[in-house]
Amino acid sequence: MTAGNKCVILGSGNVASCLAPALSHSAEILQIYSPTQQHASALASTLGATATDNLSALIPDADFYIIAVKDDAISTLTATLRKLDIPASHRGIWCHTSGSAPLSVLDGLGDGRCVFYPLQTFTHGDTVEPSSITMLLEGDCADTVQQARELASAFTCRIQEAGSEQRRRIHLAAVFASNFANHMWSKAQQILAADGLDLSLLEPLIEATLRKAVAIGPHRGQTGPARRGDKTVMEAHLSLLTPSQTSLYQCVSDSIISDYKHIKTDSAS
Amino acid sequence: MTAGNKCVILGSGNVASCLAPALSHSAEILQIYSPTQQHASALASTLGATATDNLSALIPDADFYIIAVKDDAISTLTATLRKLDIPASHRGIWCHTSGSAPLSVLDGLGDGRCVFYPLQTFTHGDTVEPSSITMLLEGDCADTVQQARELASAFTCRIQEAGSEQRRRIHLAAVFASNFANHMWSKAQQILAADGLDLSLLEPLIEATLRKAVAIGPHRGQTGPARRGDKTVMEAHLSLLTPSQTSLYQCVSDSIISDYKHIKTDSAS
Repeated sequence: MTAGNKCVILGSGNVASCLAPALSHSAEILQIYSPTQQHASALASTLGATATDNLSALIPDADFYIIAVKDDAISTLTATLRKLDIPASHRGIWCHTSGSAPLSVLDGLGDGRCVFYPLQTFTHGDTVEPSSITMLLEGDCADTVQQARELASAFTCRIQEAGSEQRRRIHLAAVFASNFANHMWSKAQQILAADGLDLSLLEPLIEATLRKAVAIGPHRGQTGPARRGDKTVMEAHLSLLTPSQTSLYQCVSDSIISDYKHIKTDSAS
Repeated sequence: MTAGNKCVILGSGNVASCLAPALSHSAEILQIYSPTQQHASALASTLGATATDNLSALIPDADFYIIAVKDDAISTLTATLRKLDIPASHRGIWCHTSGSAPLSVLDGLGDGRCVFYPLQTFTHGDTVEPSSITMLLEGDCADTVQQARELASAFTCRIQEAGSEQRRRIHLAAVFASNFANHMWSKAQQILAADGLDLSLLEPLIEATLRKAVAIGPHRGQTGPARRGDKTVMEAHLSLLTPSQTSLYQCVSDSIISDYKHIKTDSAS
């Protein structure tokens, strides 16, 4: 555990508010920047940090400047930082936390640039166990990566290096594995809610599905009517769905059918 | 726990082979029927049961006859049973294990008919913890349901009654929650495998997503580029995908966008 790292966080959204408490295990969060002062203050107050909505007022002597804003806002922010000549006066390591933005989006922010990407899902108001965060790191040199590794190692032992290209593909896989799977649960919840039932009814099923996916692989573990090519059940299901649910059901089923069409069926659920 | 129930299982696929060991905690599995003698024998040998490929040779004095065949094969099987006059000579309770078939598919199989539906995913060669199986029961009378409840209670405390219509909707929700979510993990695995990486990299992420979905609801917990309406990231993702992955990505993203289009974004991942 490295004590004494001083961090400035640029951003106050989900990633910033969930990552900051993890960082505060070992680092000191000096300051939160947000273009909306109220957002900066709200997060800063939980961390004993100062808040600012003015980039020119960024504290100059932090060890890390962590940009945790939406992907499409990073380049606008870095352009402003360069215009204000801040990189020249602030010698800390500049990081971003994006899965899909390349390291090069930080070009021109001085020496010591890195990607500090938490491979985890964050929602404001939900608490994430810091040790469950896999940190994917990329730096402009070995020393930068080493410093980022020490910062991360205070809260997780899941740390690995991944270049911009590989990280983009891992982020894409994470979208399927997390965002898209969650959307399927959201649809299940909708269907159950119409009957006054809760998603917790399906929790043991979902847990077993995940356990099996990890144990024998999700391709081999696939079950269900589309996997079996059971058109009667699929048609009965379609008759129960709203138009928008129907189009999702159809497209996911088609994708499953297409993956298994040349393989003799041996699964049922 | 009810000792001494004698069961005959009709079927030797995933459901039969995963449910039979759970049942054998309290019941005696007398016999396995399959139209393929070899399949019947393979399962029977693991249970100390006899095997047959001949419906006329079904043991007459079992307490439960459990039909665990594919949904679209149930009605063919029950038609044959009726034609052979077996229901008249076999006084036990006739069950099926299907999520989507109604109780009425068992009409004509004597008194004592029930649905004994395990709300779980089964794949041959994978071991399911019996206590993780939620049993949804429906019977032709209260006494039948009570007997089925006693049979199930030997291996799980997750037991509830659900009529045919409600069970159909729960089964549909389960397809989204289990089969479809698993397919998303399968796509993630495909993408990772191209980089020599394994799904286990994403296990902490998937677990946190599930925990959050149960804690605050999957709708509120949704994150990702489609949730944020981040078109730049989505376009970058599309450029990395194969045509069949592209159509799945597009349709799930469209469904997410459509669910959140009127709501101010406050999530990021």
